[in-house]
Amino acid sequence: MRGKEIPYKIYLSEEEMPRYWYNVRADMKNKPAPLLDPGTHEPMTAAGLEQVFCTELVKQELDNDNREIPIPQEILDFYKMYRPSPLVRAYCLEKKLGTPAKIYYKFEGNNTSGSHKLNSAIAQAYYAKEQGLKGVTTETGAGQWGTALSMACAYLGLDCRVFMVKCSYEQKPFRREVMRTYGAEVTPSPSDQTEVGRKMLAEFPGTSGSLGCAISEAVEAAVTHPGYRYVLGSVLSQVLLHQSVIGMECKTAMDKYGIKPDVIIGCAGGGSNLGGLISPFMGQKLRGEADYRFVAVEPASCPSLTRGVFAYDFCDTGKVCPLAKMYTLGSSFMPSANHAGGLRYHGMSAVLSQLYHDGYMEAVSAEQTAVFSAAETFARVEGILPAPESSHAIKAAIDEALRCKETGREETILFGLTGTGYFDMYAYQAYNDGKMTDYIPTDADLQKGLDGIPRFPGNEF
Amino acid sequence: MRGKEIPYKIYLSEEEMPRYWYNVRADMKNKPAPLLDPGTHEPMTAAGLEQVFCTELVKQELDNDNREIPIPQEILDFYKMYRPSPLVRAYCLEKKLGTPAKIYYKFEGNNTSGSHKLNSAIAQAYYAKEQGLKGVTTETGAGQWGTALSMACAYLGLDCRVFMVKCSYEQKPFRREVMRTYGAEVTPSPSDQTEVGRKMLAEFPGTSGSLGCAISEAVEAAVTHPGYRYVLGSVLSQVLLHQSVIGMECKTAMDKYGIKPDVIIGCAGGGSNLGGLISPFMGQKLRGEADYRFVAVEPASCPSLTRGVFAYDFCDTGKVCPLAKMYTLGSSFMPSANHAGGLRYHGMSAVLSQLYHDGYMEAVSAEQTAVFSAAETFARVEGILPAPESSHAIKAAIDEALRCKETGREETILFGLTGTGYFDMYAYQAYNDGKMTDYIPTDADLQKGLDGIPRFPGNEF
Repeated sequence: MRGKEIPYKIYLSEEEMPRYWYNVRADMKNKPAPLLDPGTHEPMTAAGLEQVFCTELVKQELDNDNREIPIPQEILDFYKMYRPSPLVRAYCLEKKLGTPAKIYYKFEGNNTSGSHKLNSAIAQAYYAKEQGLKGVTTETGAGQWGTALSMACAYLGLDCRVFMVKCSYEQKPFRREVMRTYGAEVTPSPSDQTEVGRKMLAEFPGTSGSLGCAISEAVEAAVTHPGYRYVLGSVLSQVLLHQSVIGMECKTAMDKYGIKPDVIIGCAGGGSNLGGLISPFMGQKLRGEADYRFVAVEPASCPSLTRGVFAYDFCDTGKVCPLAKMYTLGSSFMPSANHAGGLRYHGMSAVLSQLYHDGYMEAVSAEQTAVFSAAETFARVEGILPAPESSHAIKAAIDEALRCKETGREETILFGLTGTGYFDMYAYQAYNDGKMTDYIPTDADLQKGLDGIPRFPGNEF
Repeated sequence: MRGKEIPYKIYLSEEEMPRYWYNVRADMKNKPAPLLDPGTHEPMTAAGLEQVFCTELVKQELDNDNREIPIPQEILDFYKMYRPSPLVRAYCLEKKLGTPAKIYYKFEGNNTSGSHKLNSAIAQAYYAKEQGLKGVTTETGAGQWGTALSMACAYLGLDCRVFMVKCSYEQKPFRREVMRTYGAEVTPSPSDQTEVGRKMLAEFPGTSGSLGCAISEAVEAAVTHPGYRYVLGSVLSQVLLHQSVIGMECKTAMDKYGIKPDVIIGCAGGGSNLGGLISPFMGQKLRGEADYRFVAVEPASCPSLTRGVFAYDFCDTGKVCPLAKMYTLGSSFMPSANHAGGLRYHGMSAVLSQLYHDGYMEAVSAEQTAVFSAAETFARVEGILPAPESSHAIKAAIDEALRCKETGREETILFGLTGTGYFDMYAYQAYNDGKMTDYIPTDADLQKGLDGIPRFPGNEF
């Protein structure tokens, strides 16, 4: 179809949808460093990880060699319910900007979870079901991951126990109700259901909770209840693997129309969306078959790639999970109340961290008000109200398009539009009312977090 | 493609999208009765209507003869941004119900307005722009129509002034903020910006407003500001015309795969979605080319078709708009606080009313808790959280599918899924908490509304 006129939206047929996930680690010369036991600093074994995670998912987590992992039929069927997602040509945005650049975005928001999270939720729930488990536990902050997991569990008839950070549980009741509609048990964290929760409540009565505490409760609930395992929605290499379905669909659609992106942009919190979007393109680059620019966009308020260090650190603030080697601001770093909840993570996927460290990827940061301004521009011409997280990618894509306008270059820009902002209207309201502020941590602010990174032989930074 | 395996979702290509709206009135033997001047009871003239409405839209409102109205290119381009909407085969719902029936739904919720309303909003905004107007005014209750109109106006660079019922403005701030993000001026009604608003405020200080008052304010704002006209999101024949794009797409997709529905179901408030969905199929039935069952589903709490009368009545509770001949409960009928806000209308499209009166269509009513139970079932297997309005159609479709299960008939059921329920989580919460109740008005309740219908020669009922 090379040379054919590009429609506004490209949908693959069911036959064209990917049948395997692409494991970018197979093509990396420098593999991501192994997870370490937080006590011994020895690499985690499969047996150790299986106490917490599903067996098949541990296999995927540790698999640095197999390039193609077949997607089981039941997951393919579920994908057919809400995928393929459209690859959209942003004709209206191009016109608005007056740029010679061609802008495309892969839109993952057209499902009830409102984001790409469902791609991995169904995979993780499926393997739990296959293993004969009763259910899974997880934590959720803003609620996108919890919603996605609830949907997947409802479909498969699996118990779903979500520990939701108490302040979100109370202040964002709508996502909580979506989860309940999908049959999930949603517990405000800290709770009296776990030892760690009870301890927290005794020590800090009236606390509004934290993601770190919710993780600890979810992990405890999994290991103390037979037939349950813990699942996580980002950061892990298995999650990037599942999210490769985004990039695989995207590349098939672009190949079909003879489109080659010059630059590929994604927002980056834990890194699952960006990692998934870029993976088949990154594979080509790693194999020397093609070249692309890759740009990670993070909030200036939580700049792990652009201002963090590359070191082993705890994945959770509770310090109960294994250590991962990644770009990190330190697990005790407390991001300001940035509205892009999904990007407020102190670390970054080990896979993306290694690729960034090895020079295969760029990173930029964006301030919140500029991000919402880009979101507003985009919404008004493209008709989609984007999630604040996704809007970081929009901001960077607009910047690239304006650079093309200056230079007159007809580059092709691709970005990931991870989700919709329907449950983020308080943030939009703050922006509409002119009450949104920016926050950039000082070097001194950052130092406090960095000081909390564990120091041990081999972990110099 | 007859005989080909049916995919989960059928998307038309851009080339296959309809290029004209289908005007079902052209095929009706008994045309819908003309709008009457509320003062003289004489048919409204084009000149009279043009005081309030855009010129081209008045032409469409009065056009009972032209079967095909070409869709202007700029509207086609806008449609390409969020259309075609998918025709979905509900494989998972069929399996869950264990029915031999084949269930399809046309899903109109994958756009930021969250519903089909955008199909008419862009058309009405376009003609306002073409006429050289500065802007449009409208009212909104729950906010779907206001959101859709804001999006269309933002795209075309047109002023958009929305009078939002004050209790919704305060209790549903999220839709208000979506409208503001799209640049609309949203005013809580009653306001001090209009004479009728000031009068209302003086008479009832602290009132939380009503849709009738908001309509009156929007109409006054349009006629007292040069360069403005008033637009309306349902009930009018022009709106059904624009919404025929739903049915046209649907029929093209079904024809392509050799699918013929036995029964076509839609929820009915003002009737624009149902009217749009069924129109090309109804055209075939009216011309004697094919037969289908058509089923309108309304809330038991606001049963205009099933318990109202066929008579001339006011379209608005403020009694400033023309009289329409329709099934009505009386413009003073106050529906209970049913959560399906979009279905709380005392009347029904004149086109659908005539078709129903002439026996071309059936109507059923459904109680709220049963509707939410159907919504929950649907959400858990089909992965879409439906709007309460849309869920009335789901309820009826499930009932038809269960009837097929009993009789063993392999019928094909098509229903309209008009939108998503992301902004209706208070209602879902009430259902999840077991606090939702049903309300069916008594005959005495209804009589009060019916007594308010104007009586004049020729308006016997």
